[in-house]
Amino acid sequence: MRPQIRVRAATAAFITILAGGVLLESSVPAAMAQQEGRRRRAAADARPVELTPDQVAQLNRVANERKLNVDDLLAAAKTFMPSGRHDEYVLFSSGGQSGQVFAIGVPSMRLLRSIAVFTPESWQGYGFAGDDDPVLKQLDINGKPVLWGDTHHPALSETAGDYDGQFLFIGDKANARVAVIDLRDWETKQIVKNPLTISDHGAAFVTPNTEYVIEGGQYATVLGYGYAPPEEYKKLYRGMVTMWKFDRSKGRIDESASFALELPPYWQDLADAGKGASDGFFFINSFNVEMAVGGVEKGNPPFEAGASKRDMDYLHIVDWKKAEAAFKAGKAKKINGFPVLMIETLIADGILYFAPEPKSPHGVDVSPNGQYMVVAGKLDPHVTVYSIDRIKRAIAERKYSGTDDYGVPILDFDAVKEAQVELGLGPLHTQFDNKGYAYTSLFLDSAVARWTLGGEYAALNAEKPWTLVAKTPVQYNIGHLCAAEGDTVSPDGNYLISMSKWSVDRFLPTGPLLPQNFQLLDIGAPGTAMPVLFDMPIGVGEPHYCQMIKADKLKTWLVYPEIGWNPHTQKLDPRAPKKGEEGVTRDGNNVLVKMTAIRSHFFPEHVEVNEGDRVTWRIVAMETTQDATHGFCIGGYNINLSLEPGEFIEFTFTADRAGTYPFYCTEFCSALHLEMMGYFHVKPKAAAAAPAAEEPVASRK
Amino acid sequence: MRPQIRVRAATAAFITILAGGVLLESSVPAAMAQQEGRRRRAAADARPVELTPDQVAQLNRVANERKLNVDDLLAAAKTFMPSGRHDEYVLFSSGGQSGQVFAIGVPSMRLLRSIAVFTPESWQGYGFAGDDDPVLKQLDINGKPVLWGDTHHPALSETAGDYDGQFLFIGDKANARVAVIDLRDWETKQIVKNPLTISDHGAAFVTPNTEYVIEGGQYATVLGYGYAPPEEYKKLYRGMVTMWKFDRSKGRIDESASFALELPPYWQDLADAGKGASDGFFFINSFNVEMAVGGVEKGNPPFEAGASKRDMDYLHIVDWKKAEAAFKAGKAKKINGFPVLMIETLIADGILYFAPEPKSPHGVDVSPNGQYMVVAGKLDPHVTVYSIDRIKRAIAERKYSGTDDYGVPILDFDAVKEAQVELGLGPLHTQFDNKGYAYTSLFLDSAVARWTLGGEYAALNAEKPWTLVAKTPVQYNIGHLCAAEGDTVSPDGNYLISMSKWSVDRFLPTGPLLPQNFQLLDIGAPGTAMPVLFDMPIGVGEPHYCQMIKADKLKTWLVYPEIGWNPHTQKLDPRAPKKGEEGVTRDGNNVLVKMTAIRSHFFPEHVEVNEGDRVTWRIVAMETTQDATHGFCIGGYNINLSLEPGEFIEFTFTADRAGTYPFYCTEFCSALHLEMMGYFHVKPKAAAAAPAAEEPVASRK
Repeated sequence: MRPQIRVRAATAAFITILAGGVLLESSVPAAMAQQEGRRRRAAADARPVELTPDQVAQLNRVANERKLNVDDLLAAAKTFMPSGRHDEYVLFSSGGQSGQVFAIGVPSMRLLRSIAVFTPESWQGYGFAGDDDPVLKQLDINGKPVLWGDTHHPALSETAGDYDGQFLFIGDKANARVAVIDLRDWETKQIVKNPLTISDHGAAFVTPNTEYVIEGGQYATVLGYGYAPPEEYKKLYRGMVTMWKFDRSKGRIDESASFALELPPYWQDLADAGKGASDGFFFINSFNVEMAVGGVEKGNPPFEAGASKRDMDYLHIVDWKKAEAAFKAGKAKKINGFPVLMIETLIADGILYFAPEPKSPHGVDVSPNGQYMVVAGKLDPHVTVYSIDRIKRAIAERKYSGTDDYGVPILDFDAVKEAQVELGLGPLHTQFDNKGYAYTSLFLDSAVARWTLGGEYAALNAEKPWTLVAKTPVQYNIGHLCAAEGDTVSPDGNYLISMSKWSVDRFLPTGPLLPQNFQLLDIGAPGTAMPVLFDMPIGVGEPHYCQMIKADKLKTWLVYPEIGWNPHTQKLDPRAPKKGEEGVTRDGNNVLVKMTAIRSHFFPEHVEVNEGDRVTWRIVAMETTQDATHGFCIGGYNINLSLEPGEFIEFTFTADRAGTYPFYCTEFCSALHLEMMGYFHVKPKAAAAAPAAEEPVASRK
Repeated sequence: MRPQIRVRAATAAFITILAGGVLLESSVPAAMAQQEGRRRRAAADARPVELTPDQVAQLNRVANERKLNVDDLLAAAKTFMPSGRHDEYVLFSSGGQSGQVFAIGVPSMRLLRSIAVFTPESWQGYGFAGDDDPVLKQLDINGKPVLWGDTHHPALSETAGDYDGQFLFIGDKANARVAVIDLRDWETKQIVKNPLTISDHGAAFVTPNTEYVIEGGQYATVLGYGYAPPEEYKKLYRGMVTMWKFDRSKGRIDESASFALELPPYWQDLADAGKGASDGFFFINSFNVEMAVGGVEKGNPPFEAGASKRDMDYLHIVDWKKAEAAFKAGKAKKINGFPVLMIETLIADGILYFAPEPKSPHGVDVSPNGQYMVVAGKLDPHVTVYSIDRIKRAIAERKYSGTDDYGVPILDFDAVKEAQVELGLGPLHTQFDNKGYAYTSLFLDSAVARWTLGGEYAALNAEKPWTLVAKTPVQYNIGHLCAAEGDTVSPDGNYLISMSKWSVDRFLPTGPLLPQNFQLLDIGAPGTAMPVLFDMPIGVGEPHYCQMIKADKLKTWLVYPEIGWNPHTQKLDPRAPKKGEEGVTRDGNNVLVKMTAIRSHFFPEHVEVNEGDRVTWRIVAMETTQDATHGFCIGGYNINLSLEPGEFIEFTFTADRAGTYPFYCTEFCSALHLEMMGYFHVKPKAAAAAPAAEEPVASRK
């Protein structure tokens, strides 16, 4: 009775029945379309565009329908990417309290991918590989899981002060952790917990050859997770900065070669490494040198007032090469098992100096040649520029205006100051271009200011040095900004991102919680024009800082190098099952599952265990085609993996819930993706085949 | 010695010292800029655009620099949104195995926001509110946390078959759960676990007035979390579909008024509710009517082959009004405590019929008038169209071609079939427009097909009914597609999204794990032209299906209605501390913290407890300004909240780790955001002020 329709021919056209009875989709139509598309596109790109009157009329019509003006059309043309065209830059942005990193293409401002770092993320299978998941283990703090982070400052690895595209580091302000991401596979490889403190802020940034990943603290506390009431603030609370040694060959921080510097209990804030003229130094801002302890509940001024009373805070100038020498000479003491150079040593060895900086500063940013440190005091309408030549001279000549309460020498402000430039209200952060301009975010003005550097940069543009040139309004309340390679030794000077913290009315409302607004500015032309080209809502976290790298510096793997690759070790894993080795074996209550995954089936398709068994499951993706990713989940068991081409994963769990559980491929892999499944049977302890129903489970026929 | 610089005037210009000593940022500059921007924009929009030769030359220059052709310029102009201009549509997309929902603006294809659903997400503070977090409690399955989901099919609430913009429902395929999202504040309010099965697929979809939220199963299993080996498949495994009763006034599913239908152990797949002519019915596809049990490890054909052997599967036709009547008449039995109408009842009461459908179908989609059900058999080059008139007649006239193994009547294929239209390889899903066209995704062709409907739709366009009109190639492997309001009673017919599952070479590579590709097609013009306008990478999950709603149907709250609002109850919470009630009180080992948060301080700023205390912390955001969101975290304690304007949150935890922990605002709220902090002091049990260091903690002076 089953009506036959003519489907067999078509079926045969796109599936191939292999010897083993395996159906595989042929990718011929897609591949052909892909080639043909590229050919047509390349031919089109070779022809110069000269809009005909008819085409201009079409554009006019669309512009009128959509109420676009000519600036809109130009902005659209400057940011639009035709299908398949790749962006010029990748913006690696922190995800703030999402705990992740976001990668965004520039100039199209399209979110390319999030990278899971401090927060488990199931699409990537990050933290969903059973009880012994190495991700979850790394996220433990003092033996308890802390499953989120407040990512603040991403730092691309550098060679000679320029991004080299190999690694990305990022700090977790909330819990004082630093993560290492490998940019071959864009996965988090390591998370280190700071053993001294609970919050960081000037993290991460790197020395010019990535010798160290620096993690500066934020809120002073009792180092080593100690306790002290606020009355003991000056005596027992401390700041710190940690120098994590990076082993580039291993792609890991070497905790055993790392150390920290004790700092006074000011709230250390942003930081930057010297380079060129200032190589060997790094610089950290601070605020609350008042050492206010708040206590609004006791009638004290709140922190916001108490910490903003003085006109000057302290720029921390650290000679990290001397610090390294002191550490290697055994001068560190141990706190919570971690070596720390105490303040006395920093003073005695000439490692730490202060320079006055106005007032409650936020950013300190080093110019591309390393000569200038630009400090933006958020309650001061100026940026203050220091020069490393002046700093070195003041140190050599001991031009101090005194010491702080802890004995740290304070360099004379006029001796180290190169310039002050009035920009507007609420200056925060500064980046640079290739035309002698600096760009500073103005939080309260909601604007980006362009201004001129002096010294060797004066020759690069027509304007007077150390002068405000232009302001572009942004929407609204800009925090950080980021120019293309704008904090390296060779900025590119074409694109700039305004990381506007509030979007208010810019986008459709998304509930009381709104996205941030990344605005793309065109800074290619000198002078006063630097228009906003694009508003990008960021509704997946609250980014804090980002860095923009030329895309061609990234040497991303398209698939894993070999089948059976373990991304945790970045090596072929000898435990990875090979074709023919699949199966289920038992040793007492321990069951070992060896599984392979290939379009469109798992092998084996049934795994039977007993309730209470400890299950070790090894699975390898046999694919070698780019984008042929499989997922693997066991329903009800909190397990989901992302099996990228070639990837091997082992996970372990206890089969503590009896029942018959489907497992299936969670990543759409082929036309027969839904059929890529199997059953995990957990036989109940009590009876053999007793269903859990209270009444007859199903009608029988 | 502190050098004075002139900052006082500027400081006074933007901070106001209130009586209480509280510093508040003035928002005057931003608000003025906002108004001025709107004024300029409105004036510009009123002027018609007529590009001058000079402006055309500028466009030509940019086009040549960036190698854009005229189609690119048109696509750019059709998708670009000037700063502050709002998108016309919101696309609510499932996030696949990310467990979340994504909201995307159309036509700009900008990700506006993710909404946390099945996976804890720290930016939104979702699942990070201590031990008793109501989110985490809802995510438990049989007493254990399952902290992710595989979100598949979002369903907007409907009134008379049209989106009403009030609620969004979504299913979790991996764990058979359904979530309810309130579109006033865009937050997940409820998660219900299906008590019968472990995986779902046809979930969620709604009846035309959202009387029920339907959850269809996927992989057959032993209902009620039972166990049975594969040998007992036909006897003990079953499919199911659950009808969750929705209480619109409460905004919640009423589990006590919900019930399920037992189905044969075919793998039920996608589903759609009837409307108009077919109101009162819903339709579910199925595959694996072969009841293949796989077992490639035993030399059996794998599921992908075994489940694809037959030429016909069964379209399930369910009369849900009759099912409701049977349930109300007490005809359900209980499985795992949940009422289920067994197959006998479905047959006896005329609730369930089958119609043959070719072959391993994926989508069943009901035309806007409810007359036609379009089935796409993924291994068949045709779509098959059924009509409800024919189905009703065949039922009335008992035109059966037999029954299946479980006794369900199978309607005669020729009696119910309206048309078959040959489209190409791998048809999956169909949506509709306002011009009499249907659009079907072709997975293996990597194309979107436009074809004509018949009946009353034939008059709406110039082409012959039931005929392929055009195909647009997409990149690559399209799964679902989505037209503007394209599955409602009144589709809009302007935009269509191709949810292309593989992106391969379309974007910069992002490691072995690549984004999906949402491609925007312009379907506004009739006939053969329906160009791709935009490629949007989706690198935050693997979306499965989406729905596109006119933005003006959403009545989103900009802030919570009152200060002290509890989003879990959507009511003012009497527990919310009021100004003046702040403080810390103790009852034995239980400590109660009452806290307020307002730019830029918490009140109180110090909270002192003893190690081991049980802490209940109530915090309310006193803000009433849109976008004035605060965060609140306690470092090291796995706690982070998103305190949106007016929001009240209570969280509870044990202070089990001694130390002095900063808490701070995690959402950039003002120029003095960094100063919005305090300390949580956990006094150690052993000694009063003993720091945890092994050696002297800090140098003393």
